[in-house]
Amino acid sequence: MPYDAGLSQPLPVRIVSVSKHVAACQRVLREAGLKTQLHAYGTNIEGEWDAVFAAIKTCHETVHAMGAPRISTVIKLGTRTDRNQTMDDKVRSVRDKLRS
Amino acid sequence: MPYDAGLSQPLPVRIVSVSKHVAACQRVLREAGLKTQLHAYGTNIEGEWDAVFAAIKTCHETVHAMGAPRISTVIKLGTRTDRNQTMDDKVRSVRDKLRS
Amino acid sequence: MPYDAGLSQPLPVRIVSVSKHVAACQRVLREAGLKTQLHAYGTNIEGEWDAVFAAIKTCHETVHAMGAPRISTVIKLGTRTDRNQTMDDKVRSVRDKLRS
Amino acid sequence: MPYDAGLSQPLPVRIVSVSKHVAACQRVLREAGLKTQLHAYGTNIEGEWDAVFAAIKTCHETVHAMGAPRISTVIKLGTRTDRNQTMDDKVRSVRDKLRS
Repeated sequence: MPYDAGLSQPLPVRIVSVSKHVAACQRVLREAGLKTQLHAYGTNIEGEWDAVFAAIKTCHETVHAMGAPRISTVIKLGTRTDRNQTMDDKVRSVRDKLRS
Repeated sequence: MPYDAGLSQPLPVRIVSVSKHVAACQRVLREAGLKTQLHAYGTNIEGEWDAVFAAIKTCHETVHAMGAPRISTVIKLGTRTDRNQTMDDKVRSVRDKLRS
Repeated sequence: MPYDAGLSQPLPVRIVSVSKHVAACQRVLREAGLKTQLHAYGTNIEGEWDAVFAAIKTCHETVHAMGAPRISTVIKLGTRTDRNQTMDDKVRSVRDKLRS
Repeated sequence: MPYDAGLSQPLPVRIVSVSKHVAACQRVLREAGLKTQLHAYGTNIEGEWDAVFAAIKTCHETVHAMGAPRISTVIKLGTRTDRNQTMDDKVRSVRDKLRS
């Protein structure tokens, strides 16, 4: 099987915990009125483009203000023009297929 | 604020639904005995390196066998040697800080 | 080795080529005056936060206007307050260490 | 425009430089005989599935052995069954469209 990959450089971190930074970012997202779902590897956000990216910018500024000199974030984003599908719709659609 | 970004190319898709492929992949991961959590933008997996990547390979093979000629996957992976932390631990750690 | 991963769902695409969409996005980024580097799995961008994200939004709008109903993008972004480091600096720093 | 995003938690790092870890990983990939291209936000790899993931595992083991207790990596991977396309083909295809 032909295969190709874009591998990012391993990014070693020397910190005991990032959870306080994640919690600070959660507060920013909630204060922005965005619908969010925290999971073990990230936070899903649902909202309009400008509101979402303004909040992400505030997250970076907040975490820098807490003393982190360097922040790395991965955003996986999707836009679609064919129909509206909420985060709950996405999960429900897969679960329905798993039951049948 | 200095800023830099690695932007992947937008990848337009012309398909009505990917949920049947996601469901097929969920079955592969469960049959492999891995602990998984489905969320709106992906699936979190907890397990040993070889078992996790063997299952991901089977996912790709399965989705190709369903007729998809081209598959793109993003994996965000973490390894740590300092302590064990489950997916539930990660979420709990953030929620504890949000309460206090 | 304990291991954990955030696996995104495989996203099967049924299109012959995305290169025309990537090329359209390249033009958007250049017209925005951003420094870019195209590579095999994405495009690196260097610039100020607001300019970068305004251009990414225009990319999505442009690719939708070309007829793609659904677009998925992965952004890996970094901000740092400790010093300025260009894209060229990053690559040079690794190459220097490979030579020594 | 409806919008949705999977935002990973900002991951603050407290290290002066990761370039020595990236360089170590480059050596691993080369010794594995894989075709690689270093860029400012990662390394592109071209090869067969098993060889690629064996090398990535060795990268993690190597960086842990250098003293990093915790490593986070993002892999964007693609497989396709319709045709072979090298990393150079991908870039050339976009550049051709930019010229026309």
